[in-house]
Amino acid sequence: MQKIILDLDTGIDDTLAIAYALGSPEVELIGITATYGNVTLEQGMRNDLAITDLFGHSQVPVYPGLSHASTKDSFTVLSGSAFIHGKNGIGDVEIPDSARSAESENAVDFIIDAAHRYGEELTYVATGPLTNIAAAIAKEPDIKNEIGKIVIMGGALTVSGNVAPWREANISQDPEAANALFTSGAQVTMVGLDVTLQTLLTTEETQQWRDLHTAAGDFLSDMTDYYIRAYAKTSPKFGGCGLHDPLAVGVAIDPTLVKTLPINLKVDTEDPTRGRTIGDKDKLNDPHKTTQVAIGIDVNRFLSEFMSRISALAKGKR
Amino acid sequence: MQKIILDLDTGIDDTLAIAYALGSPEVELIGITATYGNVTLEQGMRNDLAITDLFGHSQVPVYPGLSHASTKDSFTVLSGSAFIHGKNGIGDVEIPDSARSAESENAVDFIIDAAHRYGEELTYVATGPLTNIAAAIAKEPDIKNEIGKIVIMGGALTVSGNVAPWREANISQDPEAANALFTSGAQVTMVGLDVTLQTLLTTEETQQWRDLHTAAGDFLSDMTDYYIRAYAKTSPKFGGCGLHDPLAVGVAIDPTLVKTLPINLKVDTEDPTRGRTIGDKDKLNDPHKTTQVAIGIDVNRFLSEFMSRISALAKGKR
Repeated sequence: MQKIILDLDTGIDDTLAIAYALGSPEVELIGITATYGNVTLEQGMRNDLAITDLFGHSQVPVYPGLSHASTKDSFTVLSGSAFIHGKNGIGDVEIPDSARSAESENAVDFIIDAAHRYGEELTYVATGPLTNIAAAIAKEPDIKNEIGKIVIMGGALTVSGNVAPWREANISQDPEAANALFTSGAQVTMVGLDVTLQTLLTTEETQQWRDLHTAAGDFLSDMTDYYIRAYAKTSPKFGGCGLHDPLAVGVAIDPTLVKTLPINLKVDTEDPTRGRTIGDKDKLNDPHKTTQVAIGIDVNRFLSEFMSRISALAKGKR
Repeated sequence: MQKIILDLDTGIDDTLAIAYALGSPEVELIGITATYGNVTLEQGMRNDLAITDLFGHSQVPVYPGLSHASTKDSFTVLSGSAFIHGKNGIGDVEIPDSARSAESENAVDFIIDAAHRYGEELTYVATGPLTNIAAAIAKEPDIKNEIGKIVIMGGALTVSGNVAPWREANISQDPEAANALFTSGAQVTMVGLDVTLQTLLTTEETQQWRDLHTAAGDFLSDMTDYYIRAYAKTSPKFGGCGLHDPLAVGVAIDPTLVKTLPINLKVDTEDPTRGRTIGDKDKLNDPHKTTQVAIGIDVNRFLSEFMSRISALAKGKR
């Protein structure tokens, strides 16, 4: 069975990514590596432990990752992140703390160990800044060829970013780490705003979770409604919330959900376009492409998979 | 037979676009509409008349277009354009002036008349600023649905621009006009730097024209060698010159040369990203897409078509 690691800054849509992975019979979630972004590293780990407990999967270990960008020495949650995800990251919905703690092994070493152990069987999905995976590749370069699949939610190639016209939030947090990953030689699939803003969820769907009358269903619907309300304020034209992070998990499990453009991607690290994901002109004529950027998506099929998998989990069927 | 209008700021690669069109048995070049950009409007018209004469096609009329951007009242050739195309636009190669003059009808009215007359049969290819076509659509909006095919060389979606990281030269000259075209509802195929920088010509190919020992062959090889030398200075990594404008003609004649991304494109007209070609997020979920952006290309097939068509013309066979 495919082993999957989720690298998360948990986060409402990160929580939906956990639910998607746990609701998918094709994969085993062997660990969550925590990062900063939507929330602090500490809050993210707290959420990861509490959420996996609530979903009935307290076997999932959580590994502490790096707490700030590779070029900085601290991290503060942006006010925009708190507005969209709530102060606690999960829509200010209260769920019990886990009795568990995070593992003593750090995220970087766990990623390296898992790459050595599982190789091609391992899928790594990052839905926040790419600080942990860049550090892991820097420490042990061989893993870039060992990991079976790397999928990231982040970036924007054919549409504007969400923190600046040329900057998407996850890439923006650590452009150097993102550029290190994209130019490492590792094969990476980028699931960015190009496609994630096409996968919109509304309160019609969250009502289906509420109607399950389970703790997980209540939590998912309350939390996601918070996210939908935030989107209604920041992006009323969309008519729903973007399913950014779960789409990355969906694509990791079933790549046929998206059409991809093979390209040699880089991230600009200098102003004025610092944080921009863009094709590297110097490698335009290199037939060996290392990034697959999702540029088209089968929206209906993804939404159907999303609802059936997460509802199965929320019913306690997985 | 397909009727084609070329809207040109002639220019070395514009000249190659003329040669490609005249060397193509599938199309009849019914007129050149002149614009500013690589050269002034006046210099461009002079070149168009002289070049069509030299190629043995003095039946092609040349129509004077607008001489500057829609939001400006004058135009000056940029030093970078003069460096790449030569002061006279055709690599400082001397060819005789034509005895003909440009038509008295202006380019905007000619485009409108041709759209009414030929409708679906008409293909319009622009390889400079989009000032003329935007003015024509503003004057007679119906033509946007009448013209069979609109193909432009300009823009950059998945790679950086060539005048700034977010700006390609043609779009940069008149962002308002370009945005007006892309958002007019007209179906437009964009052939931008994404693909044109993959189609490189070297002195090996220009030598084939020189070996023909014809006036057209000598002119084409001398002029294009100038362009190749300029590229060697500005972009030594490419190892040749980009065939920007002729690729737009190639795609107009045979759309299967490229893979395209259907998208609703816009051009940012405000700073800091003024001049950027980018997908319109507000129309991301509109299933009706008005732009086809070329994002992949069959390089070998295009180069083969390019050489056989232009060589046939230079031999006097077309």
